[in-house]
Amino acid sequence: MAIRILVTGGTFDKEYNERNGQLYFKDTHLPEMLRLGRSHVEVTVRTLMMVDSLDMSVSDRALIVEQCRKAAEPRIVVTHGTDTMVDTARALATAAPPLAGKTIVLTGAMVPYAFGSSDGLFNLGSALSFVQTLPPGVYLAMNGRCFEWNRVRKNRETGVFEAL
Amino acid sequence: MAIRILVTGGTFDKEYNERNGQLYFKDTHLPEMLRLGRSHVEVTVRTLMMVDSLDMSVSDRALIVEQCRKAAEPRIVVTHGTDTMVDTARALATAAPPLAGKTIVLTGAMVPYAFGSSDGLFNLGSALSFVQTLPPGVYLAMNGRCFEWNRVRKNRETGVFEAL
Amino acid sequence: MAIRILVTGGTFDKEYNERNGQLYFKDTHLPEMLRLGRSHVEVTVRTLMMVDSLDMSVSDRALIVEQCRKAAEPRIVVTHGTDTMVDTARALATAAPPLAGKTIVLTGAMVPYAFGSSDGLFNLGSALSFVQTLPPGVYLAMNGRCFEWNRVRKNRETGVFEAL
Amino acid sequence: MAIRILVTGGTFDKEYNERNGQLYFKDTHLPEMLRLGRSHVEVTVRTLMMVDSLDMSVSDRALIVEQCRKAAEPRIVVTHGTDTMVDTARALATAAPPLAGKTIVLTGAMVPYAFGSSDGLFNLGSALSFVQTLPPGVYLAMNGRCFEWNRVRKNRETGVFEAL
Repeated sequence: MAIRILVTGGTFDKEYNERNGQLYFKDTHLPEMLRLGRSHVEVTVRTLMMVDSLDMSVSDRALIVEQCRKAAEPRIVVTHGTDTMVDTARALATAAPPLAGKTIVLTGAMVPYAFGSSDGLFNLGSALSFVQTLPPGVYLAMNGRCFEWNRVRKNRETGVFEAL
Repeated sequence: MAIRILVTGGTFDKEYNERNGQLYFKDTHLPEMLRLGRSHVEVTVRTLMMVDSLDMSVSDRALIVEQCRKAAEPRIVVTHGTDTMVDTARALATAAPPLAGKTIVLTGAMVPYAFGSSDGLFNLGSALSFVQTLPPGVYLAMNGRCFEWNRVRKNRETGVFEAL
Repeated sequence: MAIRILVTGGTFDKEYNERNGQLYFKDTHLPEMLRLGRSHVEVTVRTLMMVDSLDMSVSDRALIVEQCRKAAEPRIVVTHGTDTMVDTARALATAAPPLAGKTIVLTGAMVPYAFGSSDGLFNLGSALSFVQTLPPGVYLAMNGRCFEWNRVRKNRETGVFEAL
Repeated sequence: MAIRILVTGGTFDKEYNERNGQLYFKDTHLPEMLRLGRSHVEVTVRTLMMVDSLDMSVSDRALIVEQCRKAAEPRIVVTHGTDTMVDTARALATAAPPLAGKTIVLTGAMVPYAFGSSDGLFNLGSALSFVQTLPPGVYLAMNGRCFEWNRVRKNRETGVFEAL
């Protein structure tokens, strides 16, 4: 079962810059994570952008929608920053014309993969599994749970995604 | 959605003994892995045994079947060594009387979680996701893929689980 | 041989805040690092402050000098941010009256210990070893090398400490 | 200051074989460890053998002595299994004719570097530092401490190196 993975950046892919002590984006860690998970899922990884999701623009979201529309695979995982993941999910779910017949799962991480204590690998394994079994629609997979796009919010105080 | 996790040992939980340089079992890493994954799935973890799956006896398998039968939760993840995971899956799928109405997913790891290069966290995220979405039955979840119990074998040469 | 370790913060001890995605200071990782290194050196760890070394004030440096003066142990390791490590070394080496008879080694890290790719454990092992063998004086130990306080500078472009 | 590193295997370099679940030797992790430590020490790494130190033969030790003798660098670190590290140290210290003018530091690890919980990086930083500062002689550097070759034993019960 072929799956497309679209990379947009987010906490997932943040790295530490040794020169100035800032977090920044270089390349995605997706291929390395799939290797570590010894994933045998047939995937195509494509990096669309590498941005903090708070900096994601309307045209960035339009690009994600367009890439999901064009993808030959009916099953798509989008890696995304957590702060506006719900917004992008809405853009995908309410696109006109609709993205019919596609199962799209957005996922991310609370802690960058480059940190020892990241939840990224767990979330990636989870998202890749939900996307294989759920019916067409737009979902968020975070920390072992899966939410329909219009039944979830990120609690800014606790950092946790909650069902509505 | 409440899920029961039954721990049986396997590569997942092997540790390094500093005294004699051997791999051995101490306590399960499951709680630590769930913490690392910041899992918000409602789970109950119960350790049934801590054995290498090559050493698993007929009565060990009978115990696993019995515990799945008794579990109040209809969704169960079993962590298990990879060498005889298919055998235990068969024991669960062919139990008499049948384990009706239960979705059971067996998972494990190619490399111990205590090693930096383990696939364990990825597999755990995957198994917890498949178990939430699949219909009743017995499955194996390894390295991003999910197999029905009677459609899979472990290739001993490559170490990879393959569809039959 | 008893050694005092004075903690001042720096990259060494930065952590990732899951709520807001910023790096910050919580508690020092020194005890955990000593445990990981299975250190059998007799040490007393004392946290003086937890600051980015760019934010270190004149009175912060005065406190470090004072604590080195008061320490019963003649051998002291100071963990410190790399940006102004040379400045603090100078404050220690030129203190009036002089810190006679004390071997003081400053060390730090290019990458926070909480990151998988940190040089912190290597540097800590190194600093603890140099401090046991060098004659009284003030030194910087970074990345396997040791410099006298007045024969080193941090190259801001490359991030590397260089001999003068 | 140029240093020669001679690799002989030991716990340091053990890896996990995914096929059969055994620990084994492949390539040394020394270059990767030096990279992680961002070491700026000038070193030449040479692998002499990759063995468990319990399997080290008389001729293996003769080879180590010979390589130390031939080395152009007066400062040498030998990575070695902990079980017979003291025996090899004795072979080096009592070689005829003596290895005059050379500072040789043996080091190792209680846990393989490939494990997350390894003391290897700490010990390597320590050994590279002791070798730069100690006078000619043969030493063991383990877990932050340094012992003269004839004043140390490994306590088999606790796994800890103790001063005699």
